[in-house]
Amino acid sequence: MYAEALNKLIEELKRMPGIGPKSAQRLAFYMLSSSEKQVEDLVNAIAQAKGKMKFCSICFNMTDVEPCKICSDESRENTLCVVADPKDLIAIERSREFKGKYHVLGGVISPLDGIGPESLRIKELLTRIEKEKFSEIILALSPTAEGEATIIYLTKLFRPLGIKFSRVAYGLPIGADMDYADEATLSKAIEGRRAI
Amino acid sequence: MYAEALNKLIEELKRMPGIGPKSAQRLAFYMLSSSEKQVEDLVNAIAQAKGKMKFCSICFNMTDVEPCKICSDESRENTLCVVADPKDLIAIERSREFKGKYHVLGGVISPLDGIGPESLRIKELLTRIEKEKFSEIILALSPTAEGEATIIYLTKLFRPLGIKFSRVAYGLPIGADMDYADEATLSKAIEGRRAI
Repeated sequence: MYAEALNKLIEELKRMPGIGPKSAQRLAFYMLSSSEKQVEDLVNAIAQAKGKMKFCSICFNMTDVEPCKICSDESRENTLCVVADPKDLIAIERSREFKGKYHVLGGVISPLDGIGPESLRIKELLTRIEKEKFSEIILALSPTAEGEATIIYLTKLFRPLGIKFSRVAYGLPIGADMDYADEATLSKAIEGRRAI
Repeated sequence: MYAEALNKLIEELKRMPGIGPKSAQRLAFYMLSSSEKQVEDLVNAIAQAKGKMKFCSICFNMTDVEPCKICSDESRENTLCVVADPKDLIAIERSREFKGKYHVLGGVISPLDGIGPESLRIKELLTRIEKEKFSEIILALSPTAEGEATIIYLTKLFRPLGIKFSRVAYGLPIGADMDYADEATLSKAIEGRRAI
């Protein structure tokens, strides 16, 4: 149906997360109808980012300096927030609620996807905990089955260390309508109720 | 919040249609966490497609041969289907219902977006109609305000030529539930009812 070169482009675009056949087609046609300059800018941005961005050797966030800006920021508090991915780190930074440091696990335990504890940066986390003596460790993992499994695994691992650790609260999202919340969220919200 | 190179990549990705800030971020992190090879494949596919794909000089579809496969296909019937974009052409080809040739307008009349008739390939369409003597012209434009405006404009233009022309039917999409159809669609479906 498509010409060879167009087909190849659509196939490559379809590999990306959240890009189905329709979006891939739309993106391909957009690129073909854009100016040479626009497409060059995109291709250069990909090459530049790919060339410059590395994992921070301390927290494993994506960074263009080593160590990353957060790890080298002396004003950061001595608490540690454990997240699954760089995008979760960015979401938390955006909230401006947390002023400590981070550790990016690189995913969560998910046996179905072949991701066991050894695939995550847990060994590096333990080494850091021993060395940096954090006053508290917050597990900020998504409340999914995999996130919960990872929290249980890490909890067992941390308990002998005698450090204060916690997980983020689950409950109703701010601005949500009570009657639109699903049962699991409501049940967590009631279970985690706080005296006022 | 993001490192410079990452930020630039996200900005470039956000320019694309249907890619919001969230998708752009996800795509950027996907690219950064992919292998060098995968990213090279994508960049090459973009460059290849951009280099090879041109507009067919006859129908203005995207093509890697000149004239395009459809225009040079002698077995195609002598009817013409007028579409807004190459992706509409592909959608119609996929239905296998139409066996004639195409003319891609390159959009629809949309004064709000600064697209007037002179921005579309209407002059080329008239030249083709004079030259190729089609037995019928089908206007296959989306039933939007802009599509309708374009149909009205073209209808006025074609009438003096004395050629048989038509537009595609509007009505209930196949497989749809009657009570989920919006009022405009239902009204078109009733207006366009056919004796059985």
